[in-house]
Amino acid sequence: MMKQYKYPNISEWKSICERPLQNQENLENQVKQVFSEVKKSGDTALKFFTEQFDKVSLEDLKVSESEIIEAEKLVSEELKSAIKTASENIRRFHNSQQEEKKIIETTEGVFCWRESRAIENVGIYIPGGTAALFSTVLMLGIPANIAGCKNIALCSPPDKFGKINPAILFTANLIGIKTIYKVGGSQAIAALTFGTDTIPKVDKILGPGNQYVTAAKQLAQNYGVAIDIPAGPSEVLVIADETSIPGFVASDLLSQAEHGTDSQVILLSDSEKIIDEINSEINKQLEDLHRKEIAEIALQKSKSILFDSIDEAIAFSNFYAPEHLILALENAENYTNKITDAGSVFLGNYSPESAGDYASGTNHTLPTNGFAKNYSGVSLDSFVKKITFQNITKTGIKNLGKTIELMAEAEELMAHKNAVSIRLKSLNNEN
Amino acid sequence: MMKQYKYPNISEWKSICERPLQNQENLENQVKQVFSEVKKSGDTALKFFTEQFDKVSLEDLKVSESEIIEAEKLVSEELKSAIKTASENIRRFHNSQQEEKKIIETTEGVFCWRESRAIENVGIYIPGGTAALFSTVLMLGIPANIAGCKNIALCSPPDKFGKINPAILFTANLIGIKTIYKVGGSQAIAALTFGTDTIPKVDKILGPGNQYVTAAKQLAQNYGVAIDIPAGPSEVLVIADETSIPGFVASDLLSQAEHGTDSQVILLSDSEKIIDEINSEINKQLEDLHRKEIAEIALQKSKSILFDSIDEAIAFSNFYAPEHLILALENAENYTNKITDAGSVFLGNYSPESAGDYASGTNHTLPTNGFAKNYSGVSLDSFVKKITFQNITKTGIKNLGKTIELMAEAEELMAHKNAVSIRLKSLNNEN
Repeated sequence: MMKQYKYPNISEWKSICERPLQNQENLENQVKQVFSEVKKSGDTALKFFTEQFDKVSLEDLKVSESEIIEAEKLVSEELKSAIKTASENIRRFHNSQQEEKKIIETTEGVFCWRESRAIENVGIYIPGGTAALFSTVLMLGIPANIAGCKNIALCSPPDKFGKINPAILFTANLIGIKTIYKVGGSQAIAALTFGTDTIPKVDKILGPGNQYVTAAKQLAQNYGVAIDIPAGPSEVLVIADETSIPGFVASDLLSQAEHGTDSQVILLSDSEKIIDEINSEINKQLEDLHRKEIAEIALQKSKSILFDSIDEAIAFSNFYAPEHLILALENAENYTNKITDAGSVFLGNYSPESAGDYASGTNHTLPTNGFAKNYSGVSLDSFVKKITFQNITKTGIKNLGKTIELMAEAEELMAHKNAVSIRLKSLNNEN
Repeated sequence: MMKQYKYPNISEWKSICERPLQNQENLENQVKQVFSEVKKSGDTALKFFTEQFDKVSLEDLKVSESEIIEAEKLVSEELKSAIKTASENIRRFHNSQQEEKKIIETTEGVFCWRESRAIENVGIYIPGGTAALFSTVLMLGIPANIAGCKNIALCSPPDKFGKINPAILFTANLIGIKTIYKVGGSQAIAALTFGTDTIPKVDKILGPGNQYVTAAKQLAQNYGVAIDIPAGPSEVLVIADETSIPGFVASDLLSQAEHGTDSQVILLSDSEKIIDEINSEINKQLEDLHRKEIAEIALQKSKSILFDSIDEAIAFSNFYAPEHLILALENAENYTNKITDAGSVFLGNYSPESAGDYASGTNHTLPTNGFAKNYSGVSLDSFVKKITFQNITKTGIKNLGKTIELMAEAEELMAHKNAVSIRLKSLNNEN
């Protein structure tokens, strides 16, 4: 069912790695239209688009206190407790990403260091659609929280009854996000870009979304708003050897395939036998799958590739730069040094992608579409700026002054030189 | 000469903080044209645009080995030694930004960590024009070097004799960059975006440039290329109290003003006396200035603002979010905690901006135009991706399994749940 390749020549890798092309040009004009309307008419435009796209007419775009209290009652105790467990792990891991202040004396008397400061206003986008992605609320809200972002605005499209899924509201409230807005699509991104009477303008927008949201985030950058990472369909690449457990690998491939019909699923191995076994496991497990139709379409476009060696499979994986990489290999930890391009890596037979998607602590907002070559996934870093500081003593400027003067002069920036000369002269007069 | 404000009301801050508007719309079409030509005709297009914009016809776009050897002879020993001193400080500071691997056990048996990997292919843009910015070669090349970027392509426009300034070539060679191309403007950015026969396609483009280069970098993002930071005219904001030395502050303001006619220069103080003294020092120092005409125009648009207190001045500075912030204050280090938005901060009377521009060790590629609110300056982080890894043991998945199952089920992603269930089941069968 997966498309099979055997020992592909390196010259074929590029075409095998190709992701489905997204026609952004077309979307761009639609999204520009939405931006210009929201900029012009603010909340009125948001309500108009919500009626048009989400089929609901809203009085108030902001989720009320009583809706949040109501939501709390609608979520089962068991799910609440699971969300709390996950949130603790995510908090622990993202807490560990705090950078301690290291003062470096680069030259005697010249002290340099960095300090992190929260991005003050951030917007978090949570998609609607079939599944309510409350897990993404954790993945974006917790690091925003740890960073100390002052204002966190959460936007998510309402359902046709004008409601947001209670699990999303419960999760947001759990981590202290109270400013939640019922608005989705490119109009939500436009609102966070320009601000409206109800929705605040933010400095950075994070979160996944469909191709309209993606195009809108790209456009938001032109207005000075930062974004997390460019987006594309979700992906997993599994490298399996003879020690891997076919049923486990099949379940991982399927958990990616069920995401959407455009999900990218790739299996690499040095064993034809294991590929065959995994394929028959896929067929078996597919039968009982809730989202079987979606997974089937995704699988038709997925690929299994046989390589001569695991090293070659890893080289291919680096070339592809998958969002998720599962190393279902004996002594998987021995291969980590060779991984140069991937969003998040799962080692061994008991580290399914689901663990990272929900609860192990790592972030699930990751670079897709080959962007793992040049972008990191979301982390605490995504919510802070790192400001450099320097404190130069009299001794420091005496030590470094001549160097600066020479360089400034060679760049013909004499006022840059003067700023040092005037200090050196004054210090000479002191003596 | 600077425009003077006294005790402005907070409602006026926004208009005082406004940066000069850049008309990007117009540029965009020109730059798109250049991109489409370079994509279509590669090197031929590059040579065409170089003839058109740089007024020189080139045989070869790549700087030859012999040109690099020649350059070495043209740079004075004194300047070479200054560049080496600066490069050691920059290396020391950026080396300190390496992140050590911290393995976090978020739940018993669940191990998560991050590892940094170099972005493999990076492009560095060094502007031409009046001054040869070899210092920027250090600021971008050294962290690229420390990160371990495999391919570093440096582009800089040739002069009308088809040459690149020897100090740029010497500096590039000093830090091991041998792939240097004589191409500038938006055509250089297009070449790095698409690749040509001579110039390699890269994953990320860094470096300053005029508004064409800025627009081109923005456009490059649409083709999947990452960039460092959106750019704008350079800025300094100085906060001075009665203890500051007027001559020093004046020299700092002038060193920013000489950058270009659009440079932003702002002085804040709680003392009218010191503002007056600084102004008369500016007039005095301006007389002897090499780039007097440029500085004068910049100063006409610059502002001095009197505040009731240093705390209020700091609040204004955070609101403005300057690229460079100089705290010419008594006990300046006591104020660092209050600084929330700035690119790079200079403390006390002996830390001129020039020090950070050239040699103290901090990076001089910084967020302008208010982008210090949502972007960091260039650092080692700019040249790496941080990949998350996780290794979950049998105990780990037993501990975490139920949590993942519940959350996956609530998000209606049953295959995600299955990936855990199949493992838990197999472990139960083991017992």
